[in-house]
Amino acid sequence: MTTGVRRRMGVEERRQQLIDVALELFGSRSPDEVSIDEIAAAAGISRPLVYHYFPGKHSLYEAALRRAADELTARFAEPREGPVGARLLRVMGRFFDFVEEHGAGFAALMRGGPACPADASRPAGRVPAAHAVIDGVRQAAYDHVMDHLGVRGRPPARLDLVVRSWVALAESTALIWLDGRRIPRAELERQLVHDFGALVAVSAAYDGEMAGFVAGMLADEPADGPFGELVGRLVTLVAGAGSGAGAGSGAGSGGGAGAGAGDDAGPEAVAGPDGRGGAAQAVR
Amino acid sequence: MTTGVRRRMGVEERRQQLIDVALELFGSRSPDEVSIDEIAAAAGISRPLVYHYFPGKHSLYEAALRRAADELTARFAEPREGPVGARLLRVMGRFFDFVEEHGAGFAALMRGGPACPADASRPAGRVPAAHAVIDGVRQAAYDHVMDHLGVRGRPPARLDLVVRSWVALAESTALIWLDGRRIPRAELERQLVHDFGALVAVSAAYDGEMAGFVAGMLADEPADGPFGELVGRLVTLVAGAGSGAGAGSGAGSGGGAGAGAGDDAGPEAVAGPDGRGGAAQAVR
Repeated sequence: MTTGVRRRMGVEERRQQLIDVALELFGSRSPDEVSIDEIAAAAGISRPLVYHYFPGKHSLYEAALRRAADELTARFAEPREGPVGARLLRVMGRFFDFVEEHGAGFAALMRGGPACPADASRPAGRVPAAHAVIDGVRQAAYDHVMDHLGVRGRPPARLDLVVRSWVALAESTALIWLDGRRIPRAELERQLVHDFGALVAVSAAYDGEMAGFVAGMLADEPADGPFGELVGRLVTLVAGAGSGAGAGSGAGSGGGAGAGAGDDAGPEAVAGPDGRGGAAQAVR
Repeated sequence: MTTGVRRRMGVEERRQQLIDVALELFGSRSPDEVSIDEIAAAAGISRPLVYHYFPGKHSLYEAALRRAADELTARFAEPREGPVGARLLRVMGRFFDFVEEHGAGFAALMRGGPACPADASRPAGRVPAAHAVIDGVRQAAYDHVMDHLGVRGRPPARLDLVVRSWVALAESTALIWLDGRRIPRAELERQLVHDFGALVAVSAAYDGEMAGFVAGMLADEPADGPFGELVGRLVTLVAGAGSGAGAGSGAGSGGGAGAGAGDDAGPEAVAGPDGRGGAAQAVR
């Protein structure tokens, strides 16, 4: 906001103010559409003074990008205490806080739109720094997850893949959510934690090393935490699906027994047969 | 390849030849690094003649991109016959064929590197067409999946999210795989089919409409298809995890009963206790 009253700012203070202004302007429009004049006006200073602090629009855009990346990365920090599922859920809450606060900017950045601006002031042939910044955020997310899982050194290839895939999934889920916000945010935060468990479980279903890892990971999880809760619900669901997927088969008989087990998980366990049939009808 | 013998080509034939050459050159290097002279030399024609067919490097790059996108999209075509899991697995096979054939180009395209070339010949302010092309491929993948699932019209929000998320997951999994190829390709193809099932299952664990959808989807799946097989293995795995995640709790007791069920699924069901303990030790 510009006020009538101007006061002299220090160099660093002025730089930070210009980055604030740029973040807001670039957050909803591409660098192509934002002029230096507009940035100057929003900051309440002259156009030449903007150039005094930043050599061009692209360098200001990069500084804004870096600030956003630092801010997002800071939200990954979570004490290594308590069950992993609950930690992940708290981080998801802060991640979606960021996504919601910086909606348009986050989408533009991740979709790669303004991340590679057609900026005449940019030296030809220069590799857009935006991708390096985004990759840095992804790597930070990956490192944090590995750290919370207690993995030191080079992780097994399958675990590496699962964690990287899941980071990508969280990113695209946030982008898809932003486009219409058709699902409650809290539900998505929870779902992403469950997706993590599910992707690890799929990997573990075919790989002994990953199965061991899952067993270790879940050993410390309380039954009422997000992972414990998911296990209970999945037992019910998988059981139901199993009995559908070929009667008399191995999977089918496993499913039948599992269904009984699922009933133990309590009344909030999962959708009843009514919801099922009706919805299947509606969708197909 | 250039041969000493030249013959006159028709206009369309020459355009296609230039696109072939461009695809190969842009496949491993960014447009910045590939010169029109190089393209002309590889095609065995003069530099002015290249400009006769394409106004600039960027338009040739775009044509190459569009060809690659069309080729990838063509691989999604799969008859709507038989179990959905097996269909998805066949499509994954063709998807990874493409990824393997066009490795570097696929990575460069999807990572957004050369997709937004710092090309002086590109009119300033023009939105890179590359993103539109990539979004078109994603949309085609989404439409195919919905079609195979038998969904007509606007899908429920959660199904929409799951399918979009999974398309993004397949894309990032392929990218991660290309970077080192640490996991056998066939395993990843299978894993992505299972990931689809797992993501749908997570969504269904908390939503009656999705649960109904899953029940309908799995009703036609044979026990020895990829989905049926996964259900059997997950029953075992989830059961094992359940007993770990809090003894005496709902999930825990569900897990215990499920474990018995899992034993029915046959000898190839999942990693034994030996693989588990050892691996858990090694990773943590």
